[in-house]
Amino acid sequence: MNLMKIAHVPPVVVEVSASVADAVNAMVSNKVGAVAVVENDVLRGIISERDVVKKVVHAGRAASQTRVADVMTTEVESIVEDTPPSEALQIMIDGYFRHLPIVDGKGKVLGILSIRNFLQNRVEELEDSINSITSYYAADGAGG
Amino acid sequence: MNLMKIAHVPPVVVEVSASVADAVNAMVSNKVGAVAVVENDVLRGIISERDVVKKVVHAGRAASQTRVADVMTTEVESIVEDTPPSEALQIMIDGYFRHLPIVDGKGKVLGILSIRNFLQNRVEELEDSINSITSYYAADGAGG
Repeated sequence: MNLMKIAHVPPVVVEVSASVADAVNAMVSNKVGAVAVVENDVLRGIISERDVVKKVVHAGRAASQTRVADVMTTEVESIVEDTPPSEALQIMIDGYFRHLPIVDGKGKVLGILSIRNFLQNRVEELEDSINSITSYYAADGAGG
Repeated sequence: MNLMKIAHVPPVVVEVSASVADAVNAMVSNKVGAVAVVENDVLRGIISERDVVKKVVHAGRAASQTRVADVMTTEVESIVEDTPPSEALQIMIDGYFRHLPIVDGKGKVLGILSIRNFLQNRVEELEDSINSITSYYAADGAGG
């Protein structure tokens, strides 16, 4: 499995100076549940539908008057392109993260993994493994 | 796999007469991404974080002045308790649904499945299968 193949590439990003309304526009037009927040191309945070619902709508703030910098999650875990997929999945499961940015050595965002796509891909991969294991042993049994 | 065991039970519900602000309160306090909308206990729709972001925030509406009935998804697929899990998962994958209500014969909501929990459970189940298949054949090879 190649992480970049199941990630959203190119990533949907907004500048750290953007408003929540800008981030919501980016989410809606790209049909994604979270966007990376960057400053000079470098990852500074992530803002998700959940952040908007909880920290803006629930808090009674106006999206156009609120800066993403004020509601984004700043303690963002990220991975690099060659992080082992099993490690990336474990980070998402343990942290209960729905999204995980993939960055390069300079912190530039290359893509964003969503746990939904990741898990769906993993289910298909495991089903394929089971099929090949069982057909291998079936062939072995028939032939030997 | 028992669907009710991986579903959110009891389900988080709001009345069809509720405002979006009420639905958002229910989402935030229960830490769920969607709530079922009911009328006399019967499923009428579902409203998700995505609906709030897209149809309320992005549309420039005020959550307290908007009724869930006006922004909920009304064409909701649902399943019953004994729907085969593989069928339930396929419905969610094909329809790209993140949430799927489980109802009884009268349309009363019993629980809400989230695709994330479902897929995570399926990954664990498939990994267990692979382990038992390989250890079965390993034992067979060693003994026979």
